[in-house]
Amino acid sequence: MSTCSSSSTNQMAAEEANGSVTMLPGVEDKYGGVVTEISHPMDPSAFSALLRTSLSNWTLQGKKGVWIKLPRHLIGLAETAVKEGFWFHHAEKDYLMLVYWLPKEDNTLPFNASHRVSIAAFVINHKKEVLVVQEKTGRTKGKGIWKFPTGVVNEGEYIHDGSVREVKEETGVDTEFVQVLAFRQTHKTFFEKSNLFFLCMLKPLSFEISAQESEIEAAQWMPWDEYTKQPFVQNHELLRYMTEICSAKTNGDYEGFTSIPVSEHDQQGNLYFNSLDLLPRH
Amino acid sequence: MSTCSSSSTNQMAAEEANGSVTMLPGVEDKYGGVVTEISHPMDPSAFSALLRTSLSNWTLQGKKGVWIKLPRHLIGLAETAVKEGFWFHHAEKDYLMLVYWLPKEDNTLPFNASHRVSIAAFVINHKKEVLVVQEKTGRTKGKGIWKFPTGVVNEGEYIHDGSVREVKEETGVDTEFVQVLAFRQTHKTFFEKSNLFFLCMLKPLSFEISAQESEIEAAQWMPWDEYTKQPFVQNHELLRYMTEICSAKTNGDYEGFTSIPVSEHDQQGNLYFNSLDLLPRH
Repeated sequence: MSTCSSSSTNQMAAEEANGSVTMLPGVEDKYGGVVTEISHPMDPSAFSALLRTSLSNWTLQGKKGVWIKLPRHLIGLAETAVKEGFWFHHAEKDYLMLVYWLPKEDNTLPFNASHRVSIAAFVINHKKEVLVVQEKTGRTKGKGIWKFPTGVVNEGEYIHDGSVREVKEETGVDTEFVQVLAFRQTHKTFFEKSNLFFLCMLKPLSFEISAQESEIEAAQWMPWDEYTKQPFVQNHELLRYMTEICSAKTNGDYEGFTSIPVSEHDQQGNLYFNSLDLLPRH
Repeated sequence: MSTCSSSSTNQMAAEEANGSVTMLPGVEDKYGGVVTEISHPMDPSAFSALLRTSLSNWTLQGKKGVWIKLPRHLIGLAETAVKEGFWFHHAEKDYLMLVYWLPKEDNTLPFNASHRVSIAAFVINHKKEVLVVQEKTGRTKGKGIWKFPTGVVNEGEYIHDGSVREVKEETGVDTEFVQVLAFRQTHKTFFEKSNLFFLCMLKPLSFEISAQESEIEAAQWMPWDEYTKQPFVQNHELLRYMTEICSAKTNGDYEGFTSIPVSEHDQQGNLYFNSLDLLPRH
């Protein structure tokens, strides 16, 4: 697999005595690939010549994937790379990543990101009242429907942190993450991408509500029974399941996945699992 | 939120009597946005003029996000869009999606995909032997380390289907999905993206092993105790947790998340939850 996630510092740019660069500056990745980041404007024909020379050399060196990171202001060079056989791997706001596969064998390039991660927050207080909102946009807008706070987890954010942040942003309520009670995978939910939606239970640490102006019409603590009786909740299979799970959890009859930081090699991460079953009970 | 995930059929291309198009063909999305897909080559200056006229008109119409889907062979037009203020939202192999936000308020455009989904498969037979492989590439290559089969879930594939497919591809063994036992979230694992890694338990339906030539050095059924005694397993926090969870599950002391199809509105999806706790026991 060839990827830009890490790289050696072996700069392969070759400069001749007269100062003209004869190859693109390449950085090796640990999968036998080369990454080149174009940082200065260039004449397309000069770029084309450099690219051809570089590809020939990298082929001789037995390189596999060749990555070109093109910043937005140099997008005019993309056409040249496409003409040389490059295709698109992914893009972020300010750059396009192009890629080419040199070996004759099938490419083993890593997949592009395929999922977005979203959450719904189940926050219940000691009076069996649940924290609910009415949204200003989307499918339920203007219908008087009370829902759990929901949101999309930011890039680089843990699910448990994202759920705490979303509840705070939408309602002003401080919470502590308890468990992931369930999750759901759906496909083709935005563009052609998939969604992983995590139902999180959170414990309230404050109770005063201050609804977010931009997205939230209203927010309140609502008796759980009143929430579950809404026809909108009764009529949707997913919401019925979520309600059953949350009811069981409130009654102490359900165990979800708790979260702990767990490292592997040099990478930090968070493991979510059924800790009640695994660890000695408190 | 403005997205291309669904759209009305309201074509807004305006053609004059002489046949010349004075605006780009736009399709409204359900969030107040406009999507235009460029399908024919165009002179950059003609594209620039069309784009300006279209943006003026869409602004007057109160449109929000403007999306331009540019196929790879027309990437030469990207520079023009960037000069008009567009930035990149995402790219797939054959197209670049550019985006622009017309209103004065902060943009509420949907996030790009942020996660890749991968799996590890825990497959154990009635003799308490676990299905393990040695990989031809990656960190453990050539070290004689026996690992669970792992892999990346394809775009549009469910986690449970992906785990069954990966086991079949790597080892030739047919399996049935049992549960997600745990999952782990890590950041900046490839490019700047995150990974969600699901530990899946599978029940073997066949036992003969045929190792995949391209990726797998060797595969075998290995006594569970022998697997767990490997220093590689003992020395890594994540693998130790995974081993504890799998041992507890084998002894009937652990409950993970099972999977059932659950629909919401018109969308199908799969819900993963602790069904033993929720549903009447069999």
